[in-house]
Amino acid sequence: MADNDSLAQFLATAVDAAKKAGEIIRNGFYKTKHVENKGRVDLVTETDKTCEDLIFNHLKENFPTHKFIGEETTAACGATELTDEPTWIVDPLDGTTNFVHGFPFVCVSIGLTIGKIPTVGVVYNPIMDELFTGIHGQGAFLNGKPIKVSSQSELVKSLLATEAGTKRDKATLDATTNRINSLLSKVRSIRMSGSCALNLCGIACGRLDLFYELGFGGPWDVTGGVVIVQEAGGVVYDPSGKDFDITAQRVAASNPLLKEVFVEALKQSE
Amino acid sequence: MADNDSLAQFLATAVDAAKKAGEIIRNGFYKTKHVENKGRVDLVTETDKTCEDLIFNHLKENFPTHKFIGEETTAACGATELTDEPTWIVDPLDGTTNFVHGFPFVCVSIGLTIGKIPTVGVVYNPIMDELFTGIHGQGAFLNGKPIKVSSQSELVKSLLATEAGTKRDKATLDATTNRINSLLSKVRSIRMSGSCALNLCGIACGRLDLFYELGFGGPWDVTGGVVIVQEAGGVVYDPSGKDFDITAQRVAASNPLLKEVFVEALKQSE
Repeated sequence: MADNDSLAQFLATAVDAAKKAGEIIRNGFYKTKHVENKGRVDLVTETDKTCEDLIFNHLKENFPTHKFIGEETTAACGATELTDEPTWIVDPLDGTTNFVHGFPFVCVSIGLTIGKIPTVGVVYNPIMDELFTGIHGQGAFLNGKPIKVSSQSELVKSLLATEAGTKRDKATLDATTNRINSLLSKVRSIRMSGSCALNLCGIACGRLDLFYELGFGGPWDVTGGVVIVQEAGGVVYDPSGKDFDITAQRVAASNPLLKEVFVEALKQSE
Repeated sequence: MADNDSLAQFLATAVDAAKKAGEIIRNGFYKTKHVENKGRVDLVTETDKTCEDLIFNHLKENFPTHKFIGEETTAACGATELTDEPTWIVDPLDGTTNFVHGFPFVCVSIGLTIGKIPTVGVVYNPIMDELFTGIHGQGAFLNGKPIKVSSQSELVKSLLATEAGTKRDKATLDATTNRINSLLSKVRSIRMSGSCALNLCGIACGRLDLFYELGFGGPWDVTGGVVIVQEAGGVVYDPSGKDFDITAQRVAASNPLLKEVFVEALKQSE
């Protein structure tokens, strides 16, 4: 594990990068209304690529020996193996559908793993100007103020977040809506915001009590958010209740009080 | 129909009331994190009641001959009949579950009907500081800037919003999730934000392409938003494709290009 000075420097540099990328996202976000549909798709691709380059260049300049995993890079070069080296795992634009449509849940998500453990997390929503940060062992913050998970212990009073995902084959769709049907009979209500990283931050600051998602894009959707949830007093786990695997594209998160009942409810929803 | 000067005065007075109520909501919203769960429920009731009193008093002072229908009043006094008189229809706090949890989609919704026609609309989200306004025949605005519905004409590229509602009996739940299953096979993705009035405003400013909800609370959830959608170039209709009935607790909204295919998709989802 790196010392505290290094960790603080990692975080500060990641925040710098997230803010710069956020400005590009904000500009594009308000532009989407004025371009034709095809142009919007180009704009998302362009914004995604520009932001990833900007973030990687900024981090590489400061930490030339670190490793890098990004959504765009991985899409272009195939899977990248996660090692014990300090590794930045970046989603330059989480919530691309929201970006295209102008729905305000979009963010930059930056996580750093050391020894494969998510250690630094930055999630920045430039539209709502909300910056979530966390360092392993040092707490989680929203715009500099400490945050913590909700104190809810009852499923029936809990607000659940999930996403419909991108797969539209019948088997996946049926499993998705059957799960929602079963869970809706047990929780207060459900929200779908379209951003995995912001759902994790919603858990961290207690806006949401329960979150699960299956089949999201990759580790870049969760690495930053995982640190923030854990540092806000929350727990991140596989929806089966087993240990969370950063590469498995399956995630559940809540406060510790809700974990057991949530895992049980998820099992009953299969 | 009232003359333009009167309409402008109705709108300005409603905006005043919405901003004042919004301040109370904003204060309560950031307070919910610091009170116990039972206290939060009291806080929502208190905020709701205080805001409705404030809005009704402000409007009554200015327009003593007008009629009033509000969620709180109706809950206390039973159903109120809608007449041809100028009638203010008010939801002082739409998105109460969001308010309790601190999820940022909450708003004040104020509508004025004249001859039963929604004529003035104000929807204000005090957390995101977004003020949506509309006057029949005079356009719709977000924070003073003109807004319009999306130009999307294809279901497969459309972003759909709906809500899970509050009924949890098996028949309603099954109908709800079967509908979502069927629609998900046809649209790009789905959002659930927890506020009917803000979903309508999402249609009005093109963040969302399609919205339907069945079984919401009452006309106060939709009257303000309906004016804003229509004035942004959108259409509001019954999910069956029939004319919208403000008292029916059923609503669908989109741009005009999507209406026919959306109604067809909703029929196939039954």
